[in-house]
Amino acid sequence: MYNILDKFNNVSDLKNMSLKELNQFSKEIRQFLVDKVSKTGGHLASNLGVVELTLSLYKVFNIDKDKVIWDVGHQTYVHKILTGRKDKFDELRQYGGVSGFPKRSESEYDVFETGHSSTSISAALGMARARDLKKENYNVIAVIGDGSLTGGMSLEALNDVGDRKTNLIVILNDNQMSIAKNVGGLSTYLSKLRVDPKYNKFKSDFNDALRKTNIGNSFADSIRKIKSGIKQMVVPGMFFEDMGIKYLGPIDGHNIKELTAVLAMAKKINGPVIIHTITKKGKGYKFAEENPGKFHGVSPFDKCTGEINKANSNTYSKAFGKELVNIASENKKIVAITAAMRDGTGLSEFSKIFKDRFFDVGIAEQHAVTLSAGLARAGFKPFFAVYSTFLQRAYDQVLHDICLQNLPVVLAIDRAGIVGNDGETHQGIFDISYLSHMPNMTIMSPKCIDELKFMLRWAVEQDFPIAIRYPRGGDMEDVSLEPLQNFQKGKWEIIHKGDNIAVIAVGKMVQIALKARDRLKEQGINITVINAVFVKPLDKGLLDYLINNEYKIVTIEDNIKPGGFGSTVLDYINSYENTIKIINMGYEDGFIPHGNVDILYKLNKLDVDGLVENIVKIL
Amino acid sequence: MYNILDKFNNVSDLKNMSLKELNQFSKEIRQFLVDKVSKTGGHLASNLGVVELTLSLYKVFNIDKDKVIWDVGHQTYVHKILTGRKDKFDELRQYGGVSGFPKRSESEYDVFETGHSSTSISAALGMARARDLKKENYNVIAVIGDGSLTGGMSLEALNDVGDRKTNLIVILNDNQMSIAKNVGGLSTYLSKLRVDPKYNKFKSDFNDALRKTNIGNSFADSIRKIKSGIKQMVVPGMFFEDMGIKYLGPIDGHNIKELTAVLAMAKKINGPVIIHTITKKGKGYKFAEENPGKFHGVSPFDKCTGEINKANSNTYSKAFGKELVNIASENKKIVAITAAMRDGTGLSEFSKIFKDRFFDVGIAEQHAVTLSAGLARAGFKPFFAVYSTFLQRAYDQVLHDICLQNLPVVLAIDRAGIVGNDGETHQGIFDISYLSHMPNMTIMSPKCIDELKFMLRWAVEQDFPIAIRYPRGGDMEDVSLEPLQNFQKGKWEIIHKGDNIAVIAVGKMVQIALKARDRLKEQGINITVINAVFVKPLDKGLLDYLINNEYKIVTIEDNIKPGGFGSTVLDYINSYENTIKIINMGYEDGFIPHGNVDILYKLNKLDVDGLVENIVKIL
Repeated sequence: MYNILDKFNNVSDLKNMSLKELNQFSKEIRQFLVDKVSKTGGHLASNLGVVELTLSLYKVFNIDKDKVIWDVGHQTYVHKILTGRKDKFDELRQYGGVSGFPKRSESEYDVFETGHSSTSISAALGMARARDLKKENYNVIAVIGDGSLTGGMSLEALNDVGDRKTNLIVILNDNQMSIAKNVGGLSTYLSKLRVDPKYNKFKSDFNDALRKTNIGNSFADSIRKIKSGIKQMVVPGMFFEDMGIKYLGPIDGHNIKELTAVLAMAKKINGPVIIHTITKKGKGYKFAEENPGKFHGVSPFDKCTGEINKANSNTYSKAFGKELVNIASENKKIVAITAAMRDGTGLSEFSKIFKDRFFDVGIAEQHAVTLSAGLARAGFKPFFAVYSTFLQRAYDQVLHDICLQNLPVVLAIDRAGIVGNDGETHQGIFDISYLSHMPNMTIMSPKCIDELKFMLRWAVEQDFPIAIRYPRGGDMEDVSLEPLQNFQKGKWEIIHKGDNIAVIAVGKMVQIALKARDRLKEQGINITVINAVFVKPLDKGLLDYLINNEYKIVTIEDNIKPGGFGSTVLDYINSYENTIKIINMGYEDGFIPHGNVDILYKLNKLDVDGLVENIVKIL
Repeated sequence: MYNILDKFNNVSDLKNMSLKELNQFSKEIRQFLVDKVSKTGGHLASNLGVVELTLSLYKVFNIDKDKVIWDVGHQTYVHKILTGRKDKFDELRQYGGVSGFPKRSESEYDVFETGHSSTSISAALGMARARDLKKENYNVIAVIGDGSLTGGMSLEALNDVGDRKTNLIVILNDNQMSIAKNVGGLSTYLSKLRVDPKYNKFKSDFNDALRKTNIGNSFADSIRKIKSGIKQMVVPGMFFEDMGIKYLGPIDGHNIKELTAVLAMAKKINGPVIIHTITKKGKGYKFAEENPGKFHGVSPFDKCTGEINKANSNTYSKAFGKELVNIASENKKIVAITAAMRDGTGLSEFSKIFKDRFFDVGIAEQHAVTLSAGLARAGFKPFFAVYSTFLQRAYDQVLHDICLQNLPVVLAIDRAGIVGNDGETHQGIFDISYLSHMPNMTIMSPKCIDELKFMLRWAVEQDFPIAIRYPRGGDMEDVSLEPLQNFQKGKWEIIHKGDNIAVIAVGKMVQIALKARDRLKEQGINITVINAVFVKPLDKGLLDYLINNEYKIVTIEDNIKPGGFGSTVLDYINSYENTIKIINMGYEDGFIPHGNVDILYKLNKLDVDGLVENIVKIL
């Protein structure tokens, strides 16, 4: 079926391939990617964008020795195909199958694990400095997108790269996109470079040199000549150059001939180099080229039509976005902030209707939080919509800039709890733990989508920081739920008053608790079900009642146990003379791998079986 | 005593002052600062550096309406003098007295609270956008040092500033210093600007314009002319300009005439402007000019000789630095990383002896952590020395880049626990809570300085992430302590085996526990004292013993209670069928203000009295 791919064994096979074969191989890899990802789902557009780049890198460098670190890591499918994992793509991102991100446990070619943005230059610089200290000799290469470059830590790293003359190659994979279209001054700057007349000068000089290579001179000779010409070819006065980093480019990132030549050139340069390549996200697959955002992280789809198989029609994200539009129509103080996640967080409509009140700051969670703090300080009601795992980047800003001044920012924390197939780096299982110990912070979680809407309306009226956490996807289909419509800070909802055994559940776990109640009822056990609308502050009045009436308690949350909700309930109970029995359910101290959400719930006992088991145990 | 200062009432008094008076006032303010800070201690050098800048700002702008946000906030003493607090400097940084940082509770002129670096541009941009949405009309100004500029979130903010044409003034206070001398490519870049021949061109054009102002033309007219000339005057091809931000400078930051003129000019410009001012840290006080690092944050000193009154000779920081030098002499794998805190963390000697193995990355904690991860990945043993409060910036990197890959980085967490006079923004009371829920993390804390040294040696031999937290200052003088010399992961030290009431203390709190033991012994109560060498993992074997023998337990830690050590001990006890009684001591959920450490311990009951009280209560 695939002429080259089927016979391809090892990355060293690339060494003997001609340009023609490499171009053919690119086509086959694209076909393979579209075929496989259409079945499993995954990150498609970004991988289609780096086919030639990956091939060129692994042709020019010796990756048995050289180290390539891929920023954010979701664009490593081509890398995985080339490094012995092409036969594992049917289980891509499935539990026990190959991960969608670099994993050292999978391959020694996965040099450094990535998942969150903007870490690659720092990690690469560390490895390069280690190499120099050991007086070893290999290349270290970071591949980073222009979107990731706006993340502050990339810029911290570039600042340090410029400080010492460490040999390091940074490949700037410029597709003018983060997950969505790129924003900001840096993006403007890069687009100026792209249209700079010197680009053409660079290209023609470069092509001259390439042509000479082909007519008799040894490649090495030509490289030397090219090298001596670099000083003239680079765009002068560049920011990167001023920082002490050589700049080469821009280069067409889909032209293997150009790419391999520039990479070979960069290999010879002493000190840090940045290679600016221009690529197209989704390249070679029409639907992805037209709509790279849709095909960034995609569910299984029909590869002929580009239609996503089943889009969950009613998700928390959509409901959030829709309700925020409603609220904002009535209230001019509502502003929305996103860090390059407009579509994922459900803010597309908001961004169109309220252009002036919508701020996409790029991949820059730290800035997003303090910008929100500034907006709140000046009288607005900012909603920063962000995935749980990415808010980790702004831990300090939430504590130092929002909580310390008690500013009324709302953190709309999407993808809280396990997210499934993206795995360890993306599970949102830490937010309750890292927010609960922040003074002045109020944490809420809706038991269902409709409750989220009422919660948003309530949050608007408050004058203190509020984090609202809600999961990926939608509600369970077989549970009937009445949303709570009125809230009082620190008041929980008793959904069912039963005997003196209570499940106190956070967010969607209430749905599990209700199912457990039904099942136990059949066994003659009548449990009380409490919706912990407020993760913080606790409902001390209700807890006092439960303690005084010697209830037995099981808490359940889609978060790790250490520092979690259950732990704070236990702390409160312990302040009493007479304690009562309590079991806390959540994830044990550890990372949760990729896989289907239901499988992961089951494995971690956060399902009806697990809850029933614990209730019976405590009885 | 002070001609102008004594009569100065209100910031509006500045409006009528002549240039001569302003210059005289600068001198008086400097004298006042040196006099007051020599008695209370505080941030001297940075405040001496911004005297003219602050005066010029408040002369040109109307700060009853305009908003000035001071990055890091420790350079706001002049601001405080001008805004009604000059009579409060005898209680500077004392409990209940005026804070060393902007505090909204002190004055409406303290627009936004700062303490950690690099937040000002984000906050200012938020306020500026709020102003525009409300169609109000005032100026928003962020004043930021070149050191803070290297913090990633500043660059995230600048990227966003360039995105829309928001009116915003950023004053880059370039003193070529963070707390220590600045490092990195950005610093190189700024120094190129400083020596750029266009600087002189700018200056002479500018002086021309100023001269014309003085000979008849109205000031406004001249400003218009200057404005029209700006496009020609700015250094062309600049990075800031390319990002969409107008650049003015560099300007002598001690020349009020130049400063006021440029500020007036900036006020008229539409869109974002950056004003590059060159200042000298410690300006006007010989000892601080010569040694700005020493006079950054300084204890009380003799203003005539510049001698610090009593330098604590034996501190944890010094011991850390000294022992790391010893270890590194024997072990080539040791590398040390700091984020602009070389002296404060005790690494000065290391940096001199092991130049190649020492990396000061500037104010860039995120990068520092992932750089360390890269070094560890390539076989080195990195020690990242950092203050507890600043490590908050790298929460995500510790979790995502160190813990996820289980990399053997050592976080040497200095200033853990309350630090005293710097107050809310600097208390290191969150680290146990934010590190305890990170999988794979081991947390240690030495009960005394000598124990720290053995701990460092042990840490070198381990192949997993370790955080070692230790306090500011030194040991108590009246407690005798034998350091533990051998460690076993998760094994605590029983210092005194007494009756079945045990105090489990973390770090320096062991010293409090030993004092409490002595006092209780006089009352015939014989407590067991346990040193929780490992905050994580817990000593489950010992806890099992305590539980099975029905001990009563009091835990004590210099950290907030939510998510803290005591909370994890309670979680463990709760996993037993038969629970035992436990009281957890630490800070309640809240921020701790500035003041003397002993006062703060007492107020929060983390002293011998408080511990004894709780032991008696649980008996």
